[in-house]
Amino acid sequence: MERIRTTEAAGYVGQEVRLQGWLHQFRALGKVNFLIVRDGWGTFQAFVDDEATLATMHGVGVESIIEVRGRVIAEPQAPGGVELHETRVAIMEAVHELPPVEINKREMRAALDTYLEQAAVGLRHPKRRAILRIEAAMIAGFRDHLGAQGFTEIHTPKILGAATEGGANVFTVDYFGRPAFLSQSPQLYKQMAVGFFERVFEVGPVFRAEPHATTRHLASYVSLDAEFGFIEDHRTVMAMLTGMIAAMVEAARALPDALALAGAAVPDVPATIPAIAFPDAQELLLARHGLDCRGEPDLAPEHERLLGAWAREEHGADFLFVTGYPLAKRPFYTHPDPADPRYSNGFDLLFRGLELVTGGQRLHRHADYLAALESRGMSPEPFADYLKVFRYGMPKHGGFAIGIERFLMQLLGLPNVRLAAIFPRDLNRLAP
Amino acid sequence: MERIRTTEAAGYVGQEVRLQGWLHQFRALGKVNFLIVRDGWGTFQAFVDDEATLATMHGVGVESIIEVRGRVIAEPQAPGGVELHETRVAIMEAVHELPPVEINKREMRAALDTYLEQAAVGLRHPKRRAILRIEAAMIAGFRDHLGAQGFTEIHTPKILGAATEGGANVFTVDYFGRPAFLSQSPQLYKQMAVGFFERVFEVGPVFRAEPHATTRHLASYVSLDAEFGFIEDHRTVMAMLTGMIAAMVEAARALPDALALAGAAVPDVPATIPAIAFPDAQELLLARHGLDCRGEPDLAPEHERLLGAWAREEHGADFLFVTGYPLAKRPFYTHPDPADPRYSNGFDLLFRGLELVTGGQRLHRHADYLAALESRGMSPEPFADYLKVFRYGMPKHGGFAIGIERFLMQLLGLPNVRLAAIFPRDLNRLAP
Repeated sequence: MERIRTTEAAGYVGQEVRLQGWLHQFRALGKVNFLIVRDGWGTFQAFVDDEATLATMHGVGVESIIEVRGRVIAEPQAPGGVELHETRVAIMEAVHELPPVEINKREMRAALDTYLEQAAVGLRHPKRRAILRIEAAMIAGFRDHLGAQGFTEIHTPKILGAATEGGANVFTVDYFGRPAFLSQSPQLYKQMAVGFFERVFEVGPVFRAEPHATTRHLASYVSLDAEFGFIEDHRTVMAMLTGMIAAMVEAARALPDALALAGAAVPDVPATIPAIAFPDAQELLLARHGLDCRGEPDLAPEHERLLGAWAREEHGADFLFVTGYPLAKRPFYTHPDPADPRYSNGFDLLFRGLELVTGGQRLHRHADYLAALESRGMSPEPFADYLKVFRYGMPKHGGFAIGIERFLMQLLGLPNVRLAAIFPRDLNRLAP
Repeated sequence: MERIRTTEAAGYVGQEVRLQGWLHQFRALGKVNFLIVRDGWGTFQAFVDDEATLATMHGVGVESIIEVRGRVIAEPQAPGGVELHETRVAIMEAVHELPPVEINKREMRAALDTYLEQAAVGLRHPKRRAILRIEAAMIAGFRDHLGAQGFTEIHTPKILGAATEGGANVFTVDYFGRPAFLSQSPQLYKQMAVGFFERVFEVGPVFRAEPHATTRHLASYVSLDAEFGFIEDHRTVMAMLTGMIAAMVEAARALPDALALAGAAVPDVPATIPAIAFPDAQELLLARHGLDCRGEPDLAPEHERLLGAWAREEHGADFLFVTGYPLAKRPFYTHPDPADPRYSNGFDLLFRGLELVTGGQRLHRHADYLAALESRGMSPEPFADYLKVFRYGMPKHGGFAIGIERFLMQLLGLPNVRLAAIFPRDLNRLAP
């Protein structure tokens, strides 16, 4: 008999089936005995009344690897509306120790640090693994959407000869006796790739030697990057990003079981996400909250939170674009606003009051790059390969970057971004 | 008028169209003048006879960003069977320098090193970018195939606290003042993940401090990893791998234009790839070639080449499994052959005489891991988190890993694996 998955059982009512998985739970209540088998996709409840089977189960601990056979019965009281009867169990690998964290209770009751330390086992908890399953689906949504728009996937180097984006918070590698650096972003490479593929994306690790321990920063995270040419300006990028965010949210919505486990409320993504210009955002903070941050070159997290609340009240939107950040605080490759070069064609996308995406239009002319570097007192030398592409024809282009863990944190209402990473890395954490 | 892509032009015969891209080539032959526009997807030839347009083009170099309008005409002589007439050109960004490598000749005439040094521009060559386009399609084929088999994508840490797989050829990172290591493989993590998702895959960079300069090694490459539970033995893994290889080859076959540019002959993947046991392979080498390597624990590259030739002659196959490698030369997590524990349930897949994939069944019992480490004189201490998962229930499982660059090299007949990497990293190369 072919093995079926727990998630397929509802399609086999009245039939004999065979399942394999982990003994997620066993409740021996004397006359009424249940076990729950967990496989890679879900869980399934089996009613056990056979004496021989109960004897087989005797002394066998949770997380044992088991094979379960029986007949699927429609049972409205059972989770999923089906249950296994006439259950026979074979023990494939017996476990006799209790796992270091409880993984068969509805809620995760251990402290955050315990779950992170025990992640190799703790991620078996249905709530924990649901987060990673949603992550995988959202990344697939990102790829599928951009692929359908003619984007090509690239895989750029993670070890660099120069610490290109400023040099702060960069990890150093011993590269055959020479110093090298871990990539903080595929920014420069994805721009080069616009020269050959025009539309590119990348999903890969980036490395930030963040010396702070906050609830929203990781020392390494999975960055979703896109870059494309032949745009008008940053608004073309914002439109592409809006469609992509919608595709990612839809991909999550296609996993109702995982979302229910994670307790997530999935937002609607409007066809046009509301946008506010940076100086207007500052005026708004003054008018609504008496916070005078006019003249400051960036928004503080508290400002973003208040703007997010305003977007929800005023526009009923979980997302808000803030456009036209001051040029001085954006990276050197940022394109200025042609109407007022104190500002940039760079934007942030806030999601529920937190910066989720940074993007914008980039410079595309060689002379503009040289001027931008000079005005910032930066040497063009470490950028030689990158700058070269702008001498040989580059179209107007732009792009954006999203950290998937942060997106998950906000989408699922997680208290800490570490809970959205499979095995997080931070100032103090290098294991598991 | 909406911009169309060069690859869409054949669908617009008789119609006015607008294209944008790079001036790939301009041949002014007096009365007969052609330009070729290249965009992110292909190239398209335009016939230029208008005096004003010729004047516009005067002194404008290749790689200039241009907009081209005209009417699409069926022209059997032209590449792709269509051509643009009534052509008008607008220069969006003029280029006046020649690129550092020729990118508009059919063949790449520069030396390998020149193309690698100039990759930021040189990858614009249609032949060069075709390789990366095939790479992207094959990786998508890998993901789609495994996704359809219930595999979940994971993204495991690239910075590790311990140099787990032996400690040789590992890059060291300064991690907030502590030594850390770049991941050589997601092996240990993907096995942990079998405990929560049962079937997992990963596409990501791995790092090997290879001190050799060969044509088939890189210091960092993109590894395609899969691992899954509830197998019978390594044969279950080989069957899964065979389907996956077929899916990747089919994905490449779906890009006939890129394959034609790359000059590639795509193999058939048989439903069952021929397999030979390791000792039988050694006997075969003796019988056919007088090479006595019996008793040696591994195959040399020359042996693999000869076995590949034998598979082609004897089975008409480009692929050959070699199974049952001696246990001593396989990593500690390798499952022995239950019938003869001197050998392993590990295999290699050769493709055209080169090792393409390593895989096998893994140990799944905690006590077996402790014994395997002890027999190799290895301490269990750096593996504490990993070993823990085997105390709490793990099914029989196995998996495999492929370096996509090596697969591309063999598939496309490239003389050097560096040509299959976007910006390769090796002993001497850290840029671009």
